[in-house]
Amino acid sequence: MVKYQDTALNDIFSALADPTRRALLARLEGEDALSISALAQPFEVSLPAVMKHLNVLSDAGLITREKTGRTVSVRLQAEPMAHAMQWLSRYEHFWAERLDRLAAFVEAAPDTDFGPETANSAKSPKRPKPTAKKAP
Amino acid sequence: MVKYQDTALNDIFSALADPTRRALLARLEGEDALSISALAQPFEVSLPAVMKHLNVLSDAGLITREKTGRTVSVRLQAEPMAHAMQWLSRYEHFWAERLDRLAAFVEAAPDTDFGPETANSAKSPKRPKPTAKKAP
Repeated sequence: MVKYQDTALNDIFSALADPTRRALLARLEGEDALSISALAQPFEVSLPAVMKHLNVLSDAGLITREKTGRTVSVRLQAEPMAHAMQWLSRYEHFWAERLDRLAAFVEAAPDTDFGPETANSAKSPKRPKPTAKKAP
Repeated sequence: MVKYQDTALNDIFSALADPTRRALLARLEGEDALSISALAQPFEVSLPAVMKHLNVLSDAGLITREKTGRTVSVRLQAEPMAHAMQWLSRYEHFWAERLDRLAAFVEAAPDTDFGPETANSAKSPKRPKPTAKKAP
């Protein structure tokens, strides 16, 4: 039997799978805290829909909500994403190797010029303007 | 309006949100390719359930399936995970900063001993057992 229970990771990836939830996180990134109405303002979804998304983000540990009087402040908690990144980093060598192979291919072909100058030098050189010869 | 459409990222995070799918990817990591039956063998889920998970992984671009005769070979395609990592890396400074603050705190308190010996020395010393006085 393969051991694969990691409910925290399920919640994090599931929370990040929705574009509105990712956009809510992105909006919180540059702020210390935002009220729910300020946070929801640029989105074309209803306030109850935003509240549902915030519940999912909160369950995944990606935000905290704090009530002061009638205002609820929402704060980003990015640390659980480190868990997701750690999981992904196991596979990093796959695309790193592909990039290395690409670099090796380019280095192994030194006679091939991939630079922008090739394109320029292929252009026909500018013809010097014919200078009008003055009659003596 | 916040612009947040990125359906590829939806598919990738959604595919990674399931523990069986993550375990299928982990199983493919060390192999060049696996037949579906070999891949499904250690899992306590039905073959049709595995097939459904493979469809989700394939839609997210995380595996390829190739049919040779009656055998379907499954291969890992890790590159789309680079896209997910790139998205997450935007938030990396949050936990990196927290680790920096923790390191600064430890360095700023050189007289404080966080080692296990502090805990031991705080224990009250063992009282010597009272020795029963023998009557003369």
